[in-house]
Amino acid sequence: MADAKVVPQVGELLKNSPKNWGKWGPDDEVGSLNYLTPEVVAKAAGSIRSGKVFTLQVKMANPEGDPVWPGRSGAVRINVMDEGHYIAGKGPHFEGGAHYADDFMTCFLQGSTQYDALGHVWYDDQIWNGYDSKSTIGGLAKASILAIAERGVVGRGILLDMARYRKKDVLDVAETFTHEDLQACAKAQGTEIQPRDILVIRTGWIGKFYKVSREEFYGNFVEPGLTYSPALVQWFHDMEIPNLVTDTIANEVTVDPVSGVVLPLHNALMRNLGVTLTEIAWLDDLGADCAADGQYTFLYAAAPLKVVNGTGAPVNPIVVK
Amino acid sequence: MADAKVVPQVGELLKNSPKNWGKWGPDDEVGSLNYLTPEVVAKAAGSIRSGKVFTLQVKMANPEGDPVWPGRSGAVRINVMDEGHYIAGKGPHFEGGAHYADDFMTCFLQGSTQYDALGHVWYDDQIWNGYDSKSTIGGLAKASILAIAERGVVGRGILLDMARYRKKDVLDVAETFTHEDLQACAKAQGTEIQPRDILVIRTGWIGKFYKVSREEFYGNFVEPGLTYSPALVQWFHDMEIPNLVTDTIANEVTVDPVSGVVLPLHNALMRNLGVTLTEIAWLDDLGADCAADGQYTFLYAAAPLKVVNGTGAPVNPIVVK
Amino acid sequence: MADAKVVPQVGELLKNSPKNWGKWGPDDEVGSLNYLTPEVVAKAAGSIRSGKVFTLQVKMANPEGDPVWPGRSGAVRINVMDEGHYIAGKGPHFEGGAHYADDFMTCFLQGSTQYDALGHVWYDDQIWNGYDSKSTIGGLAKASILAIAERGVVGRGILLDMARYRKKDVLDVAETFTHEDLQACAKAQGTEIQPRDILVIRTGWIGKFYKVSREEFYGNFVEPGLTYSPALVQWFHDMEIPNLVTDTIANEVTVDPVSGVVLPLHNALMRNLGVTLTEIAWLDDLGADCAADGQYTFLYAAAPLKVVNGTGAPVNPIVVK
Amino acid sequence: MADAKVVPQVGELLKNSPKNWGKWGPDDEVGSLNYLTPEVVAKAAGSIRSGKVFTLQVKMANPEGDPVWPGRSGAVRINVMDEGHYIAGKGPHFEGGAHYADDFMTCFLQGSTQYDALGHVWYDDQIWNGYDSKSTIGGLAKASILAIAERGVVGRGILLDMARYRKKDVLDVAETFTHEDLQACAKAQGTEIQPRDILVIRTGWIGKFYKVSREEFYGNFVEPGLTYSPALVQWFHDMEIPNLVTDTIANEVTVDPVSGVVLPLHNALMRNLGVTLTEIAWLDDLGADCAADGQYTFLYAAAPLKVVNGTGAPVNPIVVK
Repeated sequence: MADAKVVPQVGELLKNSPKNWGKWGPDDEVGSLNYLTPEVVAKAAGSIRSGKVFTLQVKMANPEGDPVWPGRSGAVRINVMDEGHYIAGKGPHFEGGAHYADDFMTCFLQGSTQYDALGHVWYDDQIWNGYDSKSTIGGLAKASILAIAERGVVGRGILLDMARYRKKDVLDVAETFTHEDLQACAKAQGTEIQPRDILVIRTGWIGKFYKVSREEFYGNFVEPGLTYSPALVQWFHDMEIPNLVTDTIANEVTVDPVSGVVLPLHNALMRNLGVTLTEIAWLDDLGADCAADGQYTFLYAAAPLKVVNGTGAPVNPIVVK
Repeated sequence: MADAKVVPQVGELLKNSPKNWGKWGPDDEVGSLNYLTPEVVAKAAGSIRSGKVFTLQVKMANPEGDPVWPGRSGAVRINVMDEGHYIAGKGPHFEGGAHYADDFMTCFLQGSTQYDALGHVWYDDQIWNGYDSKSTIGGLAKASILAIAERGVVGRGILLDMARYRKKDVLDVAETFTHEDLQACAKAQGTEIQPRDILVIRTGWIGKFYKVSREEFYGNFVEPGLTYSPALVQWFHDMEIPNLVTDTIANEVTVDPVSGVVLPLHNALMRNLGVTLTEIAWLDDLGADCAADGQYTFLYAAAPLKVVNGTGAPVNPIVVK
Repeated sequence: MADAKVVPQVGELLKNSPKNWGKWGPDDEVGSLNYLTPEVVAKAAGSIRSGKVFTLQVKMANPEGDPVWPGRSGAVRINVMDEGHYIAGKGPHFEGGAHYADDFMTCFLQGSTQYDALGHVWYDDQIWNGYDSKSTIGGLAKASILAIAERGVVGRGILLDMARYRKKDVLDVAETFTHEDLQACAKAQGTEIQPRDILVIRTGWIGKFYKVSREEFYGNFVEPGLTYSPALVQWFHDMEIPNLVTDTIANEVTVDPVSGVVLPLHNALMRNLGVTLTEIAWLDDLGADCAADGQYTFLYAAAPLKVVNGTGAPVNPIVVK
Repeated sequence: MADAKVVPQVGELLKNSPKNWGKWGPDDEVGSLNYLTPEVVAKAAGSIRSGKVFTLQVKMANPEGDPVWPGRSGAVRINVMDEGHYIAGKGPHFEGGAHYADDFMTCFLQGSTQYDALGHVWYDDQIWNGYDSKSTIGGLAKASILAIAERGVVGRGILLDMARYRKKDVLDVAETFTHEDLQACAKAQGTEIQPRDILVIRTGWIGKFYKVSREEFYGNFVEPGLTYSPALVQWFHDMEIPNLVTDTIANEVTVDPVSGVVLPLHNALMRNLGVTLTEIAWLDDLGADCAADGQYTFLYAAAPLKVVNGTGAPVNPIVVK
């Protein structure tokens, strides 16, 4: 961390960082998902071999607790109708006598496995594609999650199991890695990251949530993850990465250890390049299977809920191997 | 409707109807999704041709209103953080100065495009697989949406565009059709329903929601849809249909015009056979595209949210053609 | 209504209207409630005669519907624990075996009988006492309902039954009255409005909500009520009225028929003079009793919920006659 | 606590405990509040001397946290409209240009200062007055908070400052006291508990919530309070106590140290005698004032929100001295 020195403003840190603003027109709201053309999708179908299916959301409204960014709270589900109502003579009458159960939920839209809208994080009064940051007030009028949800995200995914690569159950608090580490991990797995691949990075961090006390998990909350460098940003740009999926709550090391800036990749990748971010993914089952059969690439298909004006939305991504 | 006659109890109506209880073991919670084996999934990948992607959820938390079953209300989304907070000097400080927006949602779990849990509807004190209906109290301890969400639903989907087949924009209030109509529709489209196909049936009904007044939509609320007969149930059973997807709120004609029983197929297909039901799908864009390119079969991939103990959960299904 | 003419800005309409800003110091958040000194309270106790008690809130989270301003929705209450859970073996175990029921509610803070915070409505970038209107962003940092709730409102109340005075069950849509009408009504009742009285005005409007269809109630939604004039504002100022309570949703005729301005008294009385407004009160039982026993003055005691930063809060005011 | 012995069922513990069931008719839902007749109310007005007003609710939806029973969570308040929306050009247009702020809240109905409905806690399949406990399913059809809220609670209150009496800032974890202690406390204060007095008991416990860490407050959660004995129950019965108000979350010592039964007074007093319980009151300011001026009796006026079918409802009680 950057003790005893001045932390720069993120706009200063990223003043020479590349931008894709305008690349897909002045009205674009999905950014690098444009790289997932029908041709890319059709080709990705070739990654399906055995037909095994995995789903990547964590449990939601879990009575045991949901992993969330500090300050948010987990989803809450409440029954509003069930057999108890019929026992009490309070159930609605349907001709023929059918019974049913019904329920209601409250949630933070960023409070489970979720896609960020491209307008979720910003600096210097502008969000993705240069839209005015005041367009976020009261709901995202521009670059909301709706555009991503309408389009859907389908392509070739590649699992990069950083925890296994480093022979750990879970990466350490504040442990970092770079795009070069990702490439080395891929190579060790016998795979290669190709342009326009959806990167699915496993750290073991969300698995830890279910194994340790809440105090331990949240106590010194600096997540492991990718760390900012101009070279890393350029690599994402050159590789035309459409989507970054991780099993951490914020997709990158919480604080850049070099500059002291909080979450700079949200701005360098998402705000500036339009890379979509997917957080809090459940990757432990997928990781174990890939280690077992050696197949680390697959069809990845995900579509967050179409929440109008949302800053993000929950999603249950699907992997087909 | 069944005026001036006695409406039978649904248990009486279905006393000879087939059941799959126990077929997949005493602990099964996903029913006919078991038909979607890895082999079926891998074969379905062959339906992908051009790589076009469609998403099938309706908009959610739409300020214009969401289509819901009478008595439920649409999702509500509220911002809890945005550029306004920073303008007022109330935004949280992150080192480096990044800003962000955040939001919160309330919803009925059956209040958007959604999968029903197999335990959502029942009669005679037992839900799917014979579990005690009291297990629904306070949350589904058995056959909740979680099991479906963990598994995911991937297979070959086939669009059956009943509205186009009958040369209508939208089917009429209370208009019915049968499995034989579905087969005739498939044939007219140049396709054939195969065993274990995911049936995606378009009536135009949800599209109507966005075109007419609320009074007209809800005024005489008898949805068009499939209508009960022993032969229809047997056909679903023989064809091993895993999943029925429609653009109506309740997947079948609201009231069986023969018996007067409300929603008998929920019980005959879901409770007894374990067929999963997917409701309120947005099919107008998909329908137009299929009519244009003549390709009515595709890879269908959907996974509702993993809501623990839920009676259902929202979903944004993906179609890859 | 003001057809075919220019509607002035409210700041223009009220440019010469009196203000109490600064009168109770630069940090005041309760305005005219300062008139309710201990002496006024102690004297009001003399209005208690028979000991009859009335409560003035409308039912809340009513399954039949709550009366709310168009665009808001009524409160929703949901059980989260009850005897059904114990029947299903899911209730929590307490040593000794006690059972309990528990529930959860969602509501708009202005969605039932409620006090407005003094910062609820404003114009020209300033709320009550001159605070910056940006202090409302994300929650009222100034002049929130908390200050009113901490203080409580106790004083002499006087019912002015305008509906009875005009020999109607309910005033008409858009029907207006003035401070002179209030005085004439008081006189007809055999009473007199005294300085620092809490004015409780009955129009019959909320009673109408429960008697007619929703379409009729909301169809041509121009509520009856007080209408703006400089003389009326001066009278409230001279009389040092601390609190205005009505059985309408917005305390005044919805649109000023002279100027066409919407809700000018919210600004003239609340923003400028600091008069607290209490809306959606249930006055039909109190009105009938006052007509029966001829006692129209009483101890009025009310304290909205202490919701931190709230724009208002629900309240169940108490009248002791 | 009752280690190494058998904890009796509460029905066994209270088998000879007195009941007021039927005393006020088969349809009664307010129990001992019937003792607060108009005569009692009118006489209580004589307790008003100086006109000082106190409000007894704790802050609600406090960003710093609300004190709640473990397992519940505090209220959450969210702005849905404020000056930010107008800055962004998203505020609704009113003729004349007025702006406003609006907000929404979620809360447990027992999650702030609150009245319990008489049907909130029970044993042996019956709630207050003998109603079937199945009437609680989905919402209290009998003895809900609505009845108490419609009636209101007005009478003579007496503060019994047990913390000051025992020369402590706050009573200890699990510290108990009896009705004889209450009488001794009253005597030490120079007062006397009279029949039909509303008992307002201060332990300092809620004040502690705001002074210590959450871990310390909830760590060994056995609240101080009244402790069960047949003599205590008989005293409440003989004294015709209508209402018990405390600054603890559950009005009595959490676990009866003699029998090991959890919260037996909820059943002995509320379920059986119909004594209304008011919890989580803020009494520190009132306590300091009573110690200063020596006046421990006052008019107490409280009316919880009229939540239909509620198990309880928030309240901001008023004291007039």
